[in-house]
Amino acid sequence: MKTSPLVIAGVTLRSRLFLGTGKYSSGAVMSESLAASGAELVTMALRRVRTDGGHDDIMSQLDTTKYRLLPNTSGVRDAKEAILAAELAREALGTNWLKLEIHPDPKYLMPDAIETLLATRELVKRGFVVLPYVHADPVLCKQLEEAGAAAVMPLGAPIGSNLGLETRAFLEIIIAQSRVPVVIDAGLGTPSHAAAALEMGADAVLVNTAIAAAADPVAMGAAFKLAVEAGRLGFEAGLAARSTKGEAHATSPLTSFLASV
Amino acid sequence: MKTSPLVIAGVTLRSRLFLGTGKYSSGAVMSESLAASGAELVTMALRRVRTDGGHDDIMSQLDTTKYRLLPNTSGVRDAKEAILAAELAREALGTNWLKLEIHPDPKYLMPDAIETLLATRELVKRGFVVLPYVHADPVLCKQLEEAGAAAVMPLGAPIGSNLGLETRAFLEIIIAQSRVPVVIDAGLGTPSHAAAALEMGADAVLVNTAIAAAADPVAMGAAFKLAVEAGRLGFEAGLAARSTKGEAHATSPLTSFLASV
Amino acid sequence: MKTSPLVIAGVTLRSRLFLGTGKYSSGAVMSESLAASGAELVTMALRRVRTDGGHDDIMSQLDTTKYRLLPNTSGVRDAKEAILAAELAREALGTNWLKLEIHPDPKYLMPDAIETLLATRELVKRGFVVLPYVHADPVLCKQLEEAGAAAVMPLGAPIGSNLGLETRAFLEIIIAQSRVPVVIDAGLGTPSHAAAALEMGADAVLVNTAIAAAADPVAMGAAFKLAVEAGRLGFEAGLAARSTKGEAHATSPLTSFLASV
Amino acid sequence: MKTSPLVIAGVTLRSRLFLGTGKYSSGAVMSESLAASGAELVTMALRRVRTDGGHDDIMSQLDTTKYRLLPNTSGVRDAKEAILAAELAREALGTNWLKLEIHPDPKYLMPDAIETLLATRELVKRGFVVLPYVHADPVLCKQLEEAGAAAVMPLGAPIGSNLGLETRAFLEIIIAQSRVPVVIDAGLGTPSHAAAALEMGADAVLVNTAIAAAADPVAMGAAFKLAVEAGRLGFEAGLAARSTKGEAHATSPLTSFLASV
Repeated sequence: MKTSPLVIAGVTLRSRLFLGTGKYSSGAVMSESLAASGAELVTMALRRVRTDGGHDDIMSQLDTTKYRLLPNTSGVRDAKEAILAAELAREALGTNWLKLEIHPDPKYLMPDAIETLLATRELVKRGFVVLPYVHADPVLCKQLEEAGAAAVMPLGAPIGSNLGLETRAFLEIIIAQSRVPVVIDAGLGTPSHAAAALEMGADAVLVNTAIAAAADPVAMGAAFKLAVEAGRLGFEAGLAARSTKGEAHATSPLTSFLASV
Repeated sequence: MKTSPLVIAGVTLRSRLFLGTGKYSSGAVMSESLAASGAELVTMALRRVRTDGGHDDIMSQLDTTKYRLLPNTSGVRDAKEAILAAELAREALGTNWLKLEIHPDPKYLMPDAIETLLATRELVKRGFVVLPYVHADPVLCKQLEEAGAAAVMPLGAPIGSNLGLETRAFLEIIIAQSRVPVVIDAGLGTPSHAAAALEMGADAVLVNTAIAAAADPVAMGAAFKLAVEAGRLGFEAGLAARSTKGEAHATSPLTSFLASV
Repeated sequence: MKTSPLVIAGVTLRSRLFLGTGKYSSGAVMSESLAASGAELVTMALRRVRTDGGHDDIMSQLDTTKYRLLPNTSGVRDAKEAILAAELAREALGTNWLKLEIHPDPKYLMPDAIETLLATRELVKRGFVVLPYVHADPVLCKQLEEAGAAAVMPLGAPIGSNLGLETRAFLEIIIAQSRVPVVIDAGLGTPSHAAAALEMGADAVLVNTAIAAAADPVAMGAAFKLAVEAGRLGFEAGLAARSTKGEAHATSPLTSFLASV
Repeated sequence: MKTSPLVIAGVTLRSRLFLGTGKYSSGAVMSESLAASGAELVTMALRRVRTDGGHDDIMSQLDTTKYRLLPNTSGVRDAKEAILAAELAREALGTNWLKLEIHPDPKYLMPDAIETLLATRELVKRGFVVLPYVHADPVLCKQLEEAGAAAVMPLGAPIGSNLGLETRAFLEIIIAQSRVPVVIDAGLGTPSHAAAALEMGADAVLVNTAIAAAADPVAMGAAFKLAVEAGRLGFEAGLAARSTKGEAHATSPLTSFLASV
C-alpha cells in the first residue's frame, strides 16, 4: 500500500518521519534507532559538530552516506547568532539545509517569532534551504512561506513534554492554508501522536525525545515508523466522520428473528 | 521487529486487530479490506447468517478458511435472547467463540451490564468462549473475568461515534487489574486511536465503522494494521514519560561557542 | 437572576451543589465550608455515625437543622451489606434518604452495577429515597430509574482524581434520556468542572475532595457555590454553538475607512 | 468572600470579566448584558465609532460614564494602520487605552506577531496603554511586556470558535513568567471555560461571542460574572491536586462494623 512521497525543496523523501539525535545513551543506540525508524532526514545541533572536522562520540556514529543531514541552530538566541551558526554548519557539514531554531529562553526553549522571520529572510537570500521551527501560529507560518521557507515546523506541544497535539486547532488552520510542507516538530510523545499528526494532514513529523528516552529506543524507532505510515495512509484513505450526537445507527432487534426460528 | 502474540482461550493470534463486517458497500470491498488489515478474528451479526445454511451477499464473500469467526449477538435485548442467538450461531457457524452484545436500547446501542453478566455465566457453562462487550466498568470487567469470560471488550466511546478513547481513565484501571485480555471495542475512529489503545496496554482492538465507512476501506484497513502494530510495539518498547511542567531540558546557549570560533 | 429549582422525590432544593463530609481537617472547617457552599444536601458515611447516638468530632459539628442529611453506604461491598447499612442509617439519622454506594474493591472504589441495581430495588420497596452512585452507564441509569431511584448519580471521573468530566460522552446520553434528576458525583476537581457539568444539563453535582483538600476549604466552598450557579444559569441561558471549522466571521478591513479619514 | 482586585496600568478593576460589544441583536440587549455581567472594561471596534462624533445604534446605548472604554483596532492589517486607528480612537473616545488587534487575514482573524510587537513599541512611545491580542506565544508575550504593554491578551482558541482553553499548555508558561496581567481573549465559549482560565491563574478574560450569541445574552452575562468570580476564588483558595493514578483512598470495609452491630 503506497502513499504519496514528500517533496521538500525539490528533494523527494520516502519517509515522513524526521529524527533528532539528542539524548541517546550512546552512538550505537542512536544509529540502530535511526535505522529502525526508516528516517532519511536527521537533525543535529551545531554544537555537536567539532570545528576541527571531528565529531563527538554520538555524531561519529552517524553514517552520513545514509541520511540527509538537517543541521539545527539549537542554542542560538537571535537571528544574528542563527546566521553565524548556519554558515558554520554549511561549511562543516556540506549541506545548505537548515532547521532554524531560535529560542532566547533556556527554560522552556520556546521559539522566537520575530527573530525567526528575520533570520529566515536572510538565510534564504544566502542560499539556505530553511525549515523554521515555530509556534503553531498561522500568520507567522504564512509569513515564513512568503519569506521562502522550504517547509514550516510548527510545534505540537512544549518541547520534551510528550503531550502530543496540544495545538491541534491551530495546526488545522496552518495545514489548510500552507503551500509548503508542514512538519510537526515538538511534543510528540507516542507513536499514536505521530499517527494523529499525519492523519490530520501534516506532511511529516520530527521526533526525538520520545524515541531517545524510551526504554527500548530501537523498538520505539520502529514503532514510530509504522505509526507515521499508518497515519499517512489513513489520511489518504479518507477518515470517516466523527459523530458527537451519541446516537448509534439503529439495528432491528433480533426478537422477531429469534421467535421465528 | 516482533511483538509478543496474543493468546485468547488458548488460541494464539498474530494480529491484535479484530474486524467487524457491517456497513461495507459490498462483499468484495469487505473481503479486500479484511485482507489488507491482516485481521484473523472477524465478527459478524447472527442476523446475517441464513438459517438455511446460506448467507447474505456480504457474508458469502468471507473466506472462512482464512479467518476465525467471532459471531456476535448484536440485536438481542436480554440474556435469554443472547443465549438462544449463541446456540444458533454455534450450530450455523461451527464455532463456540462468541462476542456477547446485549443492548436493550436501539438508539445508542449501549450494553446492558446486568444481562451481560447473567448471559456470560450461562454461556460459559454451555461451553462457549465468551468475549463480552461492555462499558468501561472496572468492577463489571472483573466480574466477567470471574464468570469465565475469555476476554473483556470494554468500549472506548459510543459505538459508531469515532471519538476514540473517551473512557481512558477507566480503561487504565481495567487493564491494570485484568487477568484476561482486554479488547477495546467501540468508538475507535482513526488509526491513531487504535495505536493509542495498544500503547496504553490494551491487548487488542475491534474496529468496524472507521474502516467500512472510510473513503477507501481497503487502504484504511492497511492503515489500521500498521497502527495496531505501531501501538503494540510502542507499548513493549516502553513509552517515555509525559511532562506537564512545561519546562524543557535547558541547553547551554551557543553564544560562547560562536564567540570562540 | 433566578434559575429553576431542583426537585428530588418531591423535595425542592435551592442549591444544586451537594457536599460530602470526608477529609476535612476539623469539624469547624467542615462546618464553615458547608455554610460558604450554600449546600442544603449533605452526605456522610454511616461508619461516622456512632450507634450509641453519638458522633465523631466532625459529625458533631454538623447542624442537622440546617442541612438535609443524605447518609451514604460507603464501605459496603454488596447489596446485602448496603441494605443493612441503610436500615441502620435510617434509624440513627431519622431520614429515609440514602446515597447508595457499593464498591467491592477498596483500591479504586468503583461502583458495582449489579449489586447496586439489586439493592435499589429492595430499598425502594422498603420506603427509601434512593440516590445510587454508579458508572456513567446509560442502560444502568435507565434501569435504576425504572427500579424507582429518586435520582441517579453517575461518576464524572475516578473518585478523588479531580480529573473532571472524563465520562462526558456518556453523561450526555444519560442526561438526554433520564426522567429523574442526574447528579454528577465523583472526580470533579475544580469549580469549572462543576460549572461544566451544570452547563451540559446535569441537575446537580456532589463535591467532596476538591473542597475538603483545598488550601482554603471555606473559600473553595464559596467558589463552587458560584460555579454551580454560573453553570446552571449558562445552561438555562442557552449556550452558543461551538465551531470546529476554525473560520472566524470575516470583518471588513479598516483600510478604506482609514484612507477616507 | 472577597478576591484580590486586578490592577492594569495603575487602574484598579473590580471585575475580571471584560466584554466585547459585537454581535448583539440590539443596543438594548447589549446594554442589559453588560450590566448583568458586572464588567467595567468594555471593548469596541473603531469602525463603530462615527468620526462626526456620533455612534451607531448599538454604541449609542453604551453609557460611557459606567464603563471604561477599551477601543480595539479590529480590522487593521499592519502596524501602520493600527497606529492610525489608535490615534483616531484616542481622539474620538478620549481614552489612551487600546486593545491592539492586528490580523492581516480576514478568514481566521489570527493575530500578526511581528506587526503587533512593532505597533506596541510605537504606541507605548506615544503614550498609549496597550493591551495586545496575540497568540499564546510565551516568547512574544515576554517581548510585549518588555516593550511596555500594560497587559498581554493571548488567545485561548480561534476567535469565535467557543472551544475553550485549547492553548492551555502555553498559557501556563505565559502566566508563570509574566509580570503584567494576562487576559485570555478569544475562544471562551462557556462560563466554565472562563472559570477554568481564572483557576489556572489568568488575571482576567475577555468574552464576546459566547454572551452575544447566547439564546439569552443577559442571563449569559450574569452566568459569566459568577463563573469568573468562581474561577478567581478557586485559584486563590488553592486547588486540590489532580491524580492520574486512578487509585482512590482506600476505606475500610464496613463489613466488620456491620457484623458487630
